[in-house]
Amino acid sequence: MNQFDVSTFRQHFPLLSNRVNNLPLVYFDNGATTQKPNIVIDTESEVYQQYNANVHRASHALSAKATLAFEQARAKVQRFIQAEYLEEIIWTSGTTGGINLIAQSWGQKNLKTGDEILLSHAEHHANIVPWQMIAEKTGAIIKVLPLDASGLIDENGLAGYFNEKTKVVSFSHISNVIGKVNPVKKIITLAKKYKAITVIDGAQACAHLPLNMQTLDCDFYVFSAHKMFGPTGVGVLYGRRDLLTAMPPYQGGGEMIKKVSFLGTSFNQLPFKFEAGTPNYAGVIAFSASIEFINSFSLAELAKYENLLTTYCYEKLKNIKAVKFVVEEKPDIGVLSFTVSDSHNYDIASGLDAYGIAIRSGHHCAMPLMDYLQLSGCIRVSLAAYNTYAEVDFFIDKLTLLIDGNVDEVIVEPPRREESANSTNELAMIEQFSLLKGWDSRHREIMILGKSLARMDKDLRNNTSLIAGCESHAWLLGTKNAQGKFYFSCDSDAKVIRGLLVIILAAFQQQSAAQILAFDDQSYFSKLGLSQHLSPSRSNGVKAIVDKIKTLASQH
Amino acid sequence: MNQFDVSTFRQHFPLLSNRVNNLPLVYFDNGATTQKPNIVIDTESEVYQQYNANVHRASHALSAKATLAFEQARAKVQRFIQAEYLEEIIWTSGTTGGINLIAQSWGQKNLKTGDEILLSHAEHHANIVPWQMIAEKTGAIIKVLPLDASGLIDENGLAGYFNEKTKVVSFSHISNVIGKVNPVKKIITLAKKYKAITVIDGAQACAHLPLNMQTLDCDFYVFSAHKMFGPTGVGVLYGRRDLLTAMPPYQGGGEMIKKVSFLGTSFNQLPFKFEAGTPNYAGVIAFSASIEFINSFSLAELAKYENLLTTYCYEKLKNIKAVKFVVEEKPDIGVLSFTVSDSHNYDIASGLDAYGIAIRSGHHCAMPLMDYLQLSGCIRVSLAAYNTYAEVDFFIDKLTLLIDGNVDEVIVEPPRREESANSTNELAMIEQFSLLKGWDSRHREIMILGKSLARMDKDLRNNTSLIAGCESHAWLLGTKNAQGKFYFSCDSDAKVIRGLLVIILAAFQQQSAAQILAFDDQSYFSKLGLSQHLSPSRSNGVKAIVDKIKTLASQH
Repeated sequence: MNQFDVSTFRQHFPLLSNRVNNLPLVYFDNGATTQKPNIVIDTESEVYQQYNANVHRASHALSAKATLAFEQARAKVQRFIQAEYLEEIIWTSGTTGGINLIAQSWGQKNLKTGDEILLSHAEHHANIVPWQMIAEKTGAIIKVLPLDASGLIDENGLAGYFNEKTKVVSFSHISNVIGKVNPVKKIITLAKKYKAITVIDGAQACAHLPLNMQTLDCDFYVFSAHKMFGPTGVGVLYGRRDLLTAMPPYQGGGEMIKKVSFLGTSFNQLPFKFEAGTPNYAGVIAFSASIEFINSFSLAELAKYENLLTTYCYEKLKNIKAVKFVVEEKPDIGVLSFTVSDSHNYDIASGLDAYGIAIRSGHHCAMPLMDYLQLSGCIRVSLAAYNTYAEVDFFIDKLTLLIDGNVDEVIVEPPRREESANSTNELAMIEQFSLLKGWDSRHREIMILGKSLARMDKDLRNNTSLIAGCESHAWLLGTKNAQGKFYFSCDSDAKVIRGLLVIILAAFQQQSAAQILAFDDQSYFSKLGLSQHLSPSRSNGVKAIVDKIKTLASQH
Repeated sequence: MNQFDVSTFRQHFPLLSNRVNNLPLVYFDNGATTQKPNIVIDTESEVYQQYNANVHRASHALSAKATLAFEQARAKVQRFIQAEYLEEIIWTSGTTGGINLIAQSWGQKNLKTGDEILLSHAEHHANIVPWQMIAEKTGAIIKVLPLDASGLIDENGLAGYFNEKTKVVSFSHISNVIGKVNPVKKIITLAKKYKAITVIDGAQACAHLPLNMQTLDCDFYVFSAHKMFGPTGVGVLYGRRDLLTAMPPYQGGGEMIKKVSFLGTSFNQLPFKFEAGTPNYAGVIAFSASIEFINSFSLAELAKYENLLTTYCYEKLKNIKAVKFVVEEKPDIGVLSFTVSDSHNYDIASGLDAYGIAIRSGHHCAMPLMDYLQLSGCIRVSLAAYNTYAEVDFFIDKLTLLIDGNVDEVIVEPPRREESANSTNELAMIEQFSLLKGWDSRHREIMILGKSLARMDKDLRNNTSLIAGCESHAWLLGTKNAQGKFYFSCDSDAKVIRGLLVIILAAFQQQSAAQILAFDDQSYFSKLGLSQHLSPSRSNGVKAIVDKIKTLASQH
């Protein structure tokens, strides 16, 4: 095995050579999803071009070929995670699908009132909500394991959380915010002592840690293909054979049955019992290409490089005074979470995006962890083995610029600003933006506009006016005058959203209900070159605000 | 709109120009899954090459672009099925996933002991088993609507099945075996009268009928992308907004929440409430390309051509005396199901496969329908708009040859047959097959071998010896002599399986347990050029038989 060479590795990923906002893309959002190497993209195309046929359904040559490749993929996953038996590998739609399957199938059969489910404060919503749902159905109780200062499940006093009522311990191998390897062995050993099952959320670990189900000795382990260079819509549920055998099926349909009649139905053997319906076989076969791809470089070599890069990035971030890590000490994988003093996370994220740097801000589907850490959210940089030192340097450079420079402060407003600031007409706004070249200048313009928005009275920023988003909050109130014209007042905790609010008001302020409802916001934002801000991204951007304005107009 | 031209249309599908078994592929298994046009394959690649990022999760440019395309796909589906509201379109993993969602979410909340669920005898397992599962949980009862002579849900006496306990009527728009449009409007009207919800399984209809949810006025409608030229792992659940709003979530996880805390969790609005976890966004976006593709030709034009082709094929089949259609009259879409007198379905299917013709035999995931029709299974030819008259002619020609010619009878056994028939050695078998060129000659050889297998005593063909498959049955018994050598006797209802049993016995007969367990069957079948028969296709082929031999050897 030659030493890992990032430039060779990187060449396999076509997306990484793209430009975003006319700048080279720096993709640091690998915790959300990784990019795909050519071999994965090509394998999925090849299935469709050469042997696409429904698997397990027919004896003809195409179907036999597809079925063989589909089942070989299962065997590859078995070897990749060192599971003892092939039938312990169940295909799912992803990590979330896997946890729901376990919670519903195992939980419905085995949990009763007063039974205890142990989770931790650092869990992803996907490892909380399914347990809340089954707890509500069965009367089981959720208890939450505390974290230590470094963000790991606290080993001290851990035993105190276990008792004879403990039936399930479900926790992440590595939290998607903390990036550190939890004391898995210790927890599994304790769980075994109390005969509780262990469920490990491996969504973040699967691409970074060599896995061995037999030495790990957990009962269930779940992960997603798309976080390890594989396609979307494919996940793996590993389960101990005896447990899976004893569990009732989760979904009913084709393939998972042995015999169906209206008098009674008997179910197929493992793994098919849990695989109802036509599976995402093209995705599964493409996923097996991603496993081969990882193996061809060696997961350990990738991890070694990632670790060096993470250390480099961590040290650089540590030197920036305004950066506050969410927990102490360097993470174990390339997941670096922090806040920036006196800056809104969303402003940092959108400021970096203007330089082509893709990172993530918000609650990262871990609201209880945010509450626990007393944060409204944080910024997360998540690295993969195709990221480079140069990219880290560029990111640090731009982050420093955003923090130190206060970019929107230092720009001298051009003379045309005065004029257009007074205009509340969307045409003036479109004209103003048409003069701007590139996303970074548009972003700067938005930040400047934000400064012109009067702050909304604090008392008015309440639950009635709130539009809560994942990454930022906005507040909006509307009144109608005697002439039927609407007046809106609004605000946001993020500067960039304040700027976007000015743009929105240019279109909607002092308009009638009919005008508001007829206004084509998609076309408006498209003309402004700001379409991406209309993305219906979980109540974040302006889409939710526009929707609320239209709702207010339609209700009056 | 120009008239539909099949050769132009066909050029969009790269797989169709492939050869199978050294012959031009004739793909007549479209009811199981359709082939994919280049635009769908390319769109999925393009997502991964140009804007792959997790949707709804971040504000950066890539994620915004992916989210926008993902949500535009939803709007395309809304228009395609004429749903009133965008949020009535829920992404699922497929038809099966959709029905399970409805049965569990709506059913768990609304069904109670004694409530009645109406299904029909013609339902796919995916529209039976989920209802059996929720019926068992809630105490609801399943009642089964009878069919008329043409295979449709019988309109006569239909009203007698409805009463004030009827809560759900769930049935296929078009059965995957019958191929005829059920009296949907009439059933929906009756259901409304009794305030029962209607669930339509549109898996077979979606690619063939123009859909309009508002005029159809059903409560739920489900279908799969992969049956309408789209990718695998994507499905659509349409639900009436008021019903969806009132339903509890099905799976928990990211995206489907509004706020998560250990004190309580509140859920997101529609459609996100039902879309937990990272969706198969690349698949969804590729699916939207398949909808655009269909629209560019017009679904009605495709259907018109399919109808002419179906009539042609139906008339040709009707002229073959041995062909017995499973129901009367020509189907409404290109789904033609029949049996052949004095021939096993699986022998016909594998015989056609030897000529590169992909059709399906078996129970078609509709065992209760097979029982109802008093059939052990049937042959299904399912056509799509890329199929041609020439393909139908070729198929009819080869089917006639198989029926009339009794191919295995007319072949004069070559002299080497005598010698190798006495050899029970796998090497001789490999040598024998190495002389054969092409799959059709190998298939003929298998059929000849099958004739040399002594029939197993009828009394011994019982449940103990049975290996039940979807397409055929096999029986196997093993005994061990004093020297520890195994003797197997076996049989099958399909000739081709009998031939394969001879090949299997060549390797396993008179071997010790250790030899049997150590034998590399994959390599053996690969050397024979018969790897496709080791496909673990639902206990069909030899895989299940080899597995049983190995199990017997390990147990002795």
